[in-house]
Amino acid sequence: MGVSGVGKSTIGQLLSEELSIPFFDGDDFHTAENVEKMSGGTPLTDGDRIEWLNSLNQLAIREIEKKGCIIACSALKEDYRSILTNGIENESNWIFLSGTYDQVDTRLQQRQNHFMSSELLQSQFDTLEEPKEAIKIDIGQTPNDIIEMIKNELVKKSEFGLVGLGVMGKSLSRNLAQKGFQLSIFNRHVDKEEVDVASNFKASHKELETSLAFDDLKSFVDSIQKPRKIMLMVNAGKTTDSVIEDLLPHLSPGDTLIDGGNSHFEDTKARFDDLRSRNIEFIGTGVSGGEEGALKGPSIMPGGDPVVYETIRPYLEAIAARDANGLPCCTYVGPEGSGHFVKMVHNGIEYAEMQLLSEVVGILKSHGSSYDEIAQLLESWEESKSYLQEITISILRKREGEGWLLDKILDKAGNKGTGNWTAVATAKLGVPSTMVTSALYARYLSFYKDDRVRAQALYPSERDDEKSISHADLFKAFQFARMINHSQGFRLISEASRVNSWDLNLSEIARIWTNGCIIRSDLMVELIEVLRKGDNILFDETIVGKLGDLASSANIIVSHCISVSIPIPCLSEAINFFNGIRTAGSSANLIQAQRDYFGAHTYQRVDDPLGQFHHTKW
Amino acid sequence: MGVSGVGKSTIGQLLSEELSIPFFDGDDFHTAENVEKMSGGTPLTDGDRIEWLNSLNQLAIREIEKKGCIIACSALKEDYRSILTNGIENESNWIFLSGTYDQVDTRLQQRQNHFMSSELLQSQFDTLEEPKEAIKIDIGQTPNDIIEMIKNELVKKSEFGLVGLGVMGKSLSRNLAQKGFQLSIFNRHVDKEEVDVASNFKASHKELETSLAFDDLKSFVDSIQKPRKIMLMVNAGKTTDSVIEDLLPHLSPGDTLIDGGNSHFEDTKARFDDLRSRNIEFIGTGVSGGEEGALKGPSIMPGGDPVVYETIRPYLEAIAARDANGLPCCTYVGPEGSGHFVKMVHNGIEYAEMQLLSEVVGILKSHGSSYDEIAQLLESWEESKSYLQEITISILRKREGEGWLLDKILDKAGNKGTGNWTAVATAKLGVPSTMVTSALYARYLSFYKDDRVRAQALYPSERDDEKSISHADLFKAFQFARMINHSQGFRLISEASRVNSWDLNLSEIARIWTNGCIIRSDLMVELIEVLRKGDNILFDETIVGKLGDLASSANIIVSHCISVSIPIPCLSEAINFFNGIRTAGSSANLIQAQRDYFGAHTYQRVDDPLGQFHHTKW
Repeated sequence: MGVSGVGKSTIGQLLSEELSIPFFDGDDFHTAENVEKMSGGTPLTDGDRIEWLNSLNQLAIREIEKKGCIIACSALKEDYRSILTNGIENESNWIFLSGTYDQVDTRLQQRQNHFMSSELLQSQFDTLEEPKEAIKIDIGQTPNDIIEMIKNELVKKSEFGLVGLGVMGKSLSRNLAQKGFQLSIFNRHVDKEEVDVASNFKASHKELETSLAFDDLKSFVDSIQKPRKIMLMVNAGKTTDSVIEDLLPHLSPGDTLIDGGNSHFEDTKARFDDLRSRNIEFIGTGVSGGEEGALKGPSIMPGGDPVVYETIRPYLEAIAARDANGLPCCTYVGPEGSGHFVKMVHNGIEYAEMQLLSEVVGILKSHGSSYDEIAQLLESWEESKSYLQEITISILRKREGEGWLLDKILDKAGNKGTGNWTAVATAKLGVPSTMVTSALYARYLSFYKDDRVRAQALYPSERDDEKSISHADLFKAFQFARMINHSQGFRLISEASRVNSWDLNLSEIARIWTNGCIIRSDLMVELIEVLRKGDNILFDETIVGKLGDLASSANIIVSHCISVSIPIPCLSEAINFFNGIRTAGSSANLIQAQRDYFGAHTYQRVDDPLGQFHHTKW
Repeated sequence: MGVSGVGKSTIGQLLSEELSIPFFDGDDFHTAENVEKMSGGTPLTDGDRIEWLNSLNQLAIREIEKKGCIIACSALKEDYRSILTNGIENESNWIFLSGTYDQVDTRLQQRQNHFMSSELLQSQFDTLEEPKEAIKIDIGQTPNDIIEMIKNELVKKSEFGLVGLGVMGKSLSRNLAQKGFQLSIFNRHVDKEEVDVASNFKASHKELETSLAFDDLKSFVDSIQKPRKIMLMVNAGKTTDSVIEDLLPHLSPGDTLIDGGNSHFEDTKARFDDLRSRNIEFIGTGVSGGEEGALKGPSIMPGGDPVVYETIRPYLEAIAARDANGLPCCTYVGPEGSGHFVKMVHNGIEYAEMQLLSEVVGILKSHGSSYDEIAQLLESWEESKSYLQEITISILRKREGEGWLLDKILDKAGNKGTGNWTAVATAKLGVPSTMVTSALYARYLSFYKDDRVRAQALYPSERDDEKSISHADLFKAFQFARMINHSQGFRLISEASRVNSWDLNLSEIARIWTNGCIIRSDLMVELIEVLRKGDNILFDETIVGKLGDLASSANIIVSHCISVSIPIPCLSEAINFFNGIRTAGSSANLIQAQRDYFGAHTYQRVDDPLGQFHHTKW
């Protein structure tokens, strides 16, 4: 836009070549009447312009559906510009070519065959209402410089947006910025509570220098290139819904939202369906690694439409951790809510891993080991190396004053939902994921602190400190339980994949869990190969070779701990599950008989290959 | 109704005394103009009658809101009757006093001071449209006989209705009929599948002789006295909803539906709210006892509005089992879905009781006992006497040909949802009900038959048959685990009661579970007293006295079984839960430390009485 003679056609054509999108000169679309009037030196009235402006607006709408275009038009008044961008306000950019009267008059005098008489120029300057939101370009520069300036200004739009600057959102933003992405970040404004969060955060981290910070949602969205890619790092549940609701009016068809929170996989499926009906793409992705992982490289588990995933893949893969082969710990997991389902199971496995470490430490402590001795022992357990084992060693060694910090921490273990969800999902799917459930209930039990204090007084336990345990057996029992835990976790994923037709790749899931996430471990590295061969870890020959031997030690440790009244729910579940799965003929036949006895629920027979249902009149 | 002179006032007044409801003579409500017209011998036009009929309709509506009434009115035409019962069609009964012209004429001649001239009589007979749905009475009988006939006809309506003649519905119908209730029973018609189910069932049981059988829903509903009491014995879930939907158009405000199926307590709450908004009362009741219990006396757990419960109480209490004191095993449980919640937990406890018996039998079998020996041993276990123990003994002794029936039953234990629901509810409520979950997962595991066969070959267990077990210890371990199971079940009810403000009476719930239901046992009888003193069984002094001793045996048995690789998930959970609850200071502090380490989730401190949350930069 700009008055006649500022060079709209020249600049427009150059820009068209540079950006590979078509150029249209608005003047070519004037009605014959308008052309005649202008040639005769009569200024057009607003009435003369309406039909013309509308036809340019229609042109723009048509072209935006393809790859966009450049239109030159004087568009001097705000009213004209409103007509021109009617319905495509969010998809349009104004470039205002600006010069003085003398500059423009000189240029016009040099032109030939132009129907604009220079007498009209003053009236154009009088009419001009300078646009507020436009890329303003001084025409006193070479065309090439002007093109470069425009490109810079256009490109200033960010390529990626992130909503929600909590612990994880902040780390991910810095991670993205460090990888060189042009970023827009947003945090809501809440009086006295959340004020200038985004701009303060930007100011305090050098890597965010070129990022754009917002607390106004519309400006945030407008600052991102289309089709937009916006990642949400907000609380799961209602907050996620309300943020999506707030964003929707500002989004354009084809934009993609990425939910990086710990959302429930069923919610993710519902949001995916709902947003697709509104032409917005949705990717639900698990992100594991905690504060540090999010900053230095988390494990990322995206689910949704694979074609849409390809468009956000460069960003997610760039910020993800690397596996031993340098590949990103990020992969397309599967459709719908499968990314969040897999993340949920990740957390379920994590619950049991943490509980197992807590049981091991509890056993050693009960047998008289100091924290230092336990830390040293864990450090020697090379074969079970894992992130959680490492931080446990650090925790055991953390001192506070004369004593240990650990002794000052109240033994009530919190939970934020994903363990609970895993237990519920496993109960609903009919999969016996006993260990995560056990670990969850151990946390619940830890919350009954008052009951525990009271019960200890009522039921003093008969711990026999004379008995000692073999550290070698304990190590084997621990390795054993971890293998059972992982086999249960992957079995749960495999079952969900089958039931939902997700077609998940278990080996690839193990691979992206080898770094960046909380349950990364040497065992996980081993499982990449194991799961490439089959879904059931317990049937893999390398595992079979180890597990049989480890099980004997697990039996010894669990039976010992129970005999001396040490609570070890998760280790017990591991061995009971294992003993159950290796019992071909179980006493579950009695349960079927009972059910048929009192409820006529019928039973199948071992000698009926057809599997029909029988009833006995007991 | 009937022409003038049939004796409407006389019969109406007698009936009024007999039924203790007021009588109104419609003629007293005529306008002055109408009275004058009739006295002058001029027949009334329909126009003359509208105001009068409407005022009688209003009168009837007012009285129905109290206790009902009798109104005498000639009401010769169908149109008049429509006005009279407008809006109260379902709440009204027509009694048609019918005589010949001569009979009536004679009577009229005998009357004095009656404003009806006998000349009008013929016009009345000409006008009379006989009603189709009315109790038709020949006036050539004594007034006393007429009253008796009317009463019989009115009373023919059933006092209680039952929908759904599956296993449980049939047993409950017979039970109700045997208690002398006048019953309407309904079963849907499905071509070739369910044909004449209700009438065939009625025909095959003498106690149902006076019951009314239907496969048409409207006729069924119409056959029941208002306000109606209709019990649904249909499949839980969608079937229940669709049966309610089908019933609704035929019901009247104030009718009560009783859902006696195994509905989910959250569904019951939703139905309660929905039906209340439609002026239909709803009681969700658990019914336990299986086929035989339902017939001879089940345990009944109704939840809903206590005032509404009082109206159905006589029926439910009459059919319920009796406790040791002769009181019915039926009590008002609490509001909303609490009846179904309690039934769900009943089934959860049942799951674990069945699993414990199956583990005990499995242990004994592994140690070489025959089924006969096991049955004999269980028979000697007087202190743990229960219905489930008794049927287990019968099952163990059940022979088929040369061998035992039990050996022919496939060891895949089914489940129909309530165990699953209990596990999910407990996970959501944050209560560690480990045993029902364990029992559920044991059933799930039993379904992995192919895996078990394969795993047994890969991982042969090292059962050491040299080792023997003490039956005395096993008995104590079994008693121990049952106490823990019951303490967990009642704890779950107590927690749900607290969270939902249901104000449940645990002792009363134990009482109605002492007979009729599947988990009836001597232990349950003992718990009536225990739970009268407090909600937590483990803190009761009589329990404390026993449990400490039993726990030592449980430790011995569980640790022994694990050392010889016998799967005992439920016994293990019992001892692990117990060892956990009697550990005042647990290693859950490590889990809190880990959570704070990787996720900045914070922790509380043992030396901070304010309970504030702290974070460490590890």
